[in-house]
Amino acid sequence: MPEPMDIAFEAAEAASKRGEVPVGAVVLGPDGQVLAVAGNEVEAGDPTAHAEILALRAAAAKLGRPRLEGCELVVTLEPCSMCATAISHARIKRLVFAAYDPKGGGVEHGPRMYRQPTCHHRPEVVGGVQAEKAEMLLKQFFAGLRAES
Amino acid sequence: MPEPMDIAFEAAEAASKRGEVPVGAVVLGPDGQVLAVAGNEVEAGDPTAHAEILALRAAAAKLGRPRLEGCELVVTLEPCSMCATAISHARIKRLVFAAYDPKGGGVEHGPRMYRQPTCHHRPEVVGGVQAEKAEMLLKQFFAGLRAES
Repeated sequence: MPEPMDIAFEAAEAASKRGEVPVGAVVLGPDGQVLAVAGNEVEAGDPTAHAEILALRAAAAKLGRPRLEGCELVVTLEPCSMCATAISHARIKRLVFAAYDPKGGGVEHGPRMYRQPTCHHRPEVVGGVQAEKAEMLLKQFFAGLRAES
Repeated sequence: MPEPMDIAFEAAEAASKRGEVPVGAVVLGPDGQVLAVAGNEVEAGDPTAHAEILALRAAAAKLGRPRLEGCELVVTLEPCSMCATAISHARIKRLVFAAYDPKGGGVEHGPRMYRQPTCHHRPEVVGGVQAEKAEMLLKQFFAGLRAES
């Protein structure tokens, strides 16, 4: 069975082929089973359709409840503040991400959401897993956009 | 025609009847036309289904694009960090909210999202519109929950 981060990379690469910023996310159940996989779908017409939001929604639909206690979210890029807060609302136990995002990240950068006193649920965070691969994927995508314009 | 905040209150009251925290949101187009109305749907099984997120998604679907330049979002409660960031991602021009939320708000409380240096789009913000009505609605809802438990 592929590693969860590799599944997230596959979703990121598929997103890139659709013209979406290449980010992919996976939600794992408490037993490590894959509950949901998603890639970015913003350009398809939904400003909230980051990979993490789509994966959280799909996992919640699968479990039939809005809170995903004991679940893990694996994503190829440091979540933005929207997604970091959604991960907290969903009671995700553990967040694993690949590349750090100094410009748009909200976990280890910007507002550092889980360090805010008003944050009611803080997941365990592991950042930098296969970071170089994720950075390369993003660089290639944005270099392609610049070449087109 | 009812005022946008009154439409948002109707959606909040409908949410309350479904057992959801009573918050309602409306997105208005650049011409002031109502593009989308939504109430909270979290307990129905989606941790990201705050009224604002649902209204943004519906408005984007209606316009067929993810960025809602020139649009306004009207909501009965100060948005949380997830929704505040989503409002920024969606390029909403103006945010109007009723009650302030010192515990969960992310606009004038907590991380104050639009004052973060990494925030790339800052809407105009008007808070406190019909705040007492929204506070009363929330108080009644939570008092009802306590009476049940």
